[in-house]
Amino acid sequence: MAEPLFDRLALIGIGLIGSSLAQVARREGLVGEIAISTRSKKTLERARELNLGDVYTLDPAEAVSDADLVVLCIPVGACDAMMQTIAGSLKPGAILTDVGSVKMSVIDQIAPHVPDTVHFIPGHPIAGTEHSGPDAGFPDLFQNRWCILTPDKSTSQDAIDRLAAFWRGCGSDVELMEPGRHDLVLAITSHLPQLISYNIVGTADDLETVTKSEVIKYSAGGFRDFTRLAASDPTMWRDVCLHNRDAILEMLGRFSEDLSAMQRAIRWGDAGVLYDLFSRTRSIRKSIIEAGQETPAPDFGRPHEKTRD
Amino acid sequence: MAEPLFDRLALIGIGLIGSSLAQVARREGLVGEIAISTRSKKTLERARELNLGDVYTLDPAEAVSDADLVVLCIPVGACDAMMQTIAGSLKPGAILTDVGSVKMSVIDQIAPHVPDTVHFIPGHPIAGTEHSGPDAGFPDLFQNRWCILTPDKSTSQDAIDRLAAFWRGCGSDVELMEPGRHDLVLAITSHLPQLISYNIVGTADDLETVTKSEVIKYSAGGFRDFTRLAASDPTMWRDVCLHNRDAILEMLGRFSEDLSAMQRAIRWGDAGVLYDLFSRTRSIRKSIIEAGQETPAPDFGRPHEKTRD
Repeated sequence: MAEPLFDRLALIGIGLIGSSLAQVARREGLVGEIAISTRSKKTLERARELNLGDVYTLDPAEAVSDADLVVLCIPVGACDAMMQTIAGSLKPGAILTDVGSVKMSVIDQIAPHVPDTVHFIPGHPIAGTEHSGPDAGFPDLFQNRWCILTPDKSTSQDAIDRLAAFWRGCGSDVELMEPGRHDLVLAITSHLPQLISYNIVGTADDLETVTKSEVIKYSAGGFRDFTRLAASDPTMWRDVCLHNRDAILEMLGRFSEDLSAMQRAIRWGDAGVLYDLFSRTRSIRKSIIEAGQETPAPDFGRPHEKTRD
Repeated sequence: MAEPLFDRLALIGIGLIGSSLAQVARREGLVGEIAISTRSKKTLERARELNLGDVYTLDPAEAVSDADLVVLCIPVGACDAMMQTIAGSLKPGAILTDVGSVKMSVIDQIAPHVPDTVHFIPGHPIAGTEHSGPDAGFPDLFQNRWCILTPDKSTSQDAIDRLAAFWRGCGSDVELMEPGRHDLVLAITSHLPQLISYNIVGTADDLETVTKSEVIKYSAGGFRDFTRLAASDPTMWRDVCLHNRDAILEMLGRFSEDLSAMQRAIRWGDAGVLYDLFSRTRSIRKSIIEAGQETPAPDFGRPHEKTRD
């Protein structure tokens, strides 16, 4: 196994992403020691039981004090307060990064607190599942997924290279992007799908004409596909909405406009418009499969054998 | 193996559903002989190559003439024309059913043509994948899924029992339902999710600010979940829209109303409303998993190991 890239990694927050990072970093020998800090005592104890790190503390300032790489794995709305706590304890020369799904707001919250001696490189691994918490983590989460870094022009190239090497070691491809562009791209590839999923599950839940048990029984007709995203962590997604507001509202506006056009075509029985709309969308899935970002197995590869009786 | 339930099954249409039915009916010994008819010569030849049946014909009237069970596996908009072709050839005592995702319109199209000696029982297996055509079929498709039958009050109980036994033999649970209720329930559990998926993929495809290659690369952020349904057969779904218009427009209206409320909460930064909305949707997925209609594996059980390089 090669020399570790960093002597000490501090993970602030140990949910799905933090736990997965701890597991892959250790498996691949990317870091010497792992310090874990989280707000909840219960979660910290669970991380210890799962043996995710080497040092466990409820004090994030303590966790970062000796770390060469600090990764904030917390909701995007919590960055400013966290920086007020840890900024003074960051080690000179350390790299500070995050994993948040929004970058402009995270930069606004973090950058003002960063000491001159610390390299701040915002980051976002495009990977996840619908499960949360330290138990949800697994070391292959980042395998074959993209990690976007959004450094500014003054950032040390050496620091960027070292952080990119860390993510590649986790199995990811790395892309550099301007933070505003990141927020726009993610608004369509992630935030809008998430909000649409929450919305349709909410609509179904509210119906007085169709019972919840009917929705559950017949969900294999398509509905169940949406329930996966809608089972994601509510705090994380509340913060994404609040912190990427403009890009999200822009995408929601476009989506609603298109939906109104479809609704009109259905009302007026415009078969040609509907057929054309339903035909153009197949190729994009094919491209996603070819890009290695989706399984070619039918039905996401869900099991179809008998699972009860 | 038990005595077959029907001496001869005629499958009119041999796409995903017809092909899966042929395979499970043969594997389970549910029928003696299988006659297959489809409009396209190429598809019929493919069915023959796949050895899906015993008799192959381009003439549906010939296929049904000696059949005890006739299953129409065709788009819901094609039922009236098909009945004009086959009604005079149906065997006295035969059961005629279909697999369409809409029931009121199918009944309107089929019932006027059905001879008094034939038992017409509309049906709908709540099962499918995003793939179409005879190659997409597999015998476990109906396993552990619901099949809804919507007979009217004058239908022979014996015929209902025999058709229900056939579907149970295919691995399904059977439920009887009033056709109007079916169309309402499916509008929320299947048709709305389908249309929302088509719409969001269309919105992404139309963006001038984010490139298609960015949408593809970062689709693991959630977008790819929607591309599965959006890859479904466009003819089938065009027909569903045209034939379940009122229920679909009702559900689209409610969805849009709810989306506007969410949009407003995002615009005004109403954190409490967003958190509550995002919290209430987890339990429904849990119930769907408990009902055996979804896998508990994270990310639909998609593979997370390395798949390229």
